[in-house]
Amino acid sequence: MKGLFITFEGTEGSGKTTQISLLTEWLDQKKIPYLAVREPGGTKIGDLIRDILLNAKLTEMKQRTEILLYAASRAQLVEEKILPALQAGQLVICDRYLDSSIVYQSLAANWDLNEVLDINRVATGGLKPIRTYLLDLPIEMGQKRLMVRRTQKDRIELKELAFHQRVREGYLKLAEKEPSRFRVISADQEIKMVHQQITNDLLPLIDHLSEPIDFMTN
Amino acid sequence: MKGLFITFEGTEGSGKTTQISLLTEWLDQKKIPYLAVREPGGTKIGDLIRDILLNAKLTEMKQRTEILLYAASRAQLVEEKILPALQAGQLVICDRYLDSSIVYQSLAANWDLNEVLDINRVATGGLKPIRTYLLDLPIEMGQKRLMVRRTQKDRIELKELAFHQRVREGYLKLAEKEPSRFRVISADQEIKMVHQQITNDLLPLIDHLSEPIDFMTN
Repeated sequence: MKGLFITFEGTEGSGKTTQISLLTEWLDQKKIPYLAVREPGGTKIGDLIRDILLNAKLTEMKQRTEILLYAASRAQLVEEKILPALQAGQLVICDRYLDSSIVYQSLAANWDLNEVLDINRVATGGLKPIRTYLLDLPIEMGQKRLMVRRTQKDRIELKELAFHQRVREGYLKLAEKEPSRFRVISADQEIKMVHQQITNDLLPLIDHLSEPIDFMTN
Repeated sequence: MKGLFITFEGTEGSGKTTQISLLTEWLDQKKIPYLAVREPGGTKIGDLIRDILLNAKLTEMKQRTEILLYAASRAQLVEEKILPALQAGQLVICDRYLDSSIVYQSLAANWDLNEVLDINRVATGGLKPIRTYLLDLPIEMGQKRLMVRRTQKDRIELKELAFHQRVREGYLKLAEKEPSRFRVISADQEIKMVHQQITNDLLPLIDHLSEPIDFMTN
């Protein structure tokens, strides 16, 4: 595989969307080709699944249903979008991926980890990111940011504070286990500082990507 | 578990819907309480998943996505509807269940059987029917029935004839492996004859159900 697969993880309000947007601007300036997608969703079928997953009215949703729907959206995204982009030598940036399932659906929700991993092995075909940026923030600060941002919360955001606390702890545990893949970045600092830490870390990885095509010489 | 869980399986046009409808009329007459559901669907969330699965326009759907979406619909159905009905001592009739996934998504589609089984172990929590009626019919006859019935086919019905042939063979293989659970019934005979074979077989099982409540004596 020629491309480069990186993911962003973090609790609600940790600034993933803002940072991905700054990163893609930076990539545009450098003329580095990339694909930026988000989970759940990122494809037409995935967006239909996302509508079900985040619908705050569907309170009857069972945990096993949720695990399988996230995996279904991921399966479609990997095969329809991520793999072709990687095969074309692109940088792929994914807003949430497998680690979100491990943390939200197993570690924080007390669901058997092996079941979540079995299901996601089928969903991803084993594809893992080479780098994961974990934006870490105290839960109360993330919740405050969310309150400022919007009036309506989705089904996941509505979960209790203790749940989100377990999500944060779960992420930090994963990062500790895989220090070569994870970069834990404090999201409790200037947006530009966070961005700089990400690009500083990413630049050496990008240098290994195939050179962007120079149309002047063709 | 006090209740009784039975399923109907078969290729397209084999008459499952007709037979389930005759069976529920028969149960109504006998005042035997039951729950009749279908897959994919059977719940509000399941019906939303069904809309995605059978949408003939979503030709980009990957096989792993399909496996996971069927399992998600099944997971919700089992926990929201089937288990509570069984715990209440009811007869539960399901139009398609786990065998459909094994046959359509693994045996006929050449997908790893263990992956389909792993995913569905999570989806069903291990719940299996005590009896499965397999309505068996030559593929060409089922296709003819479908042509008479409607003008628009769904995404699964649109698959090639050879696929449906493998489905039929897959079902017969499963039935051979589990003769105590399966009853293979030829669907190439009078509708009433098929119905009679089903009720003849089902009656002794129903006798083991808790007696329906007699409101006159309460």
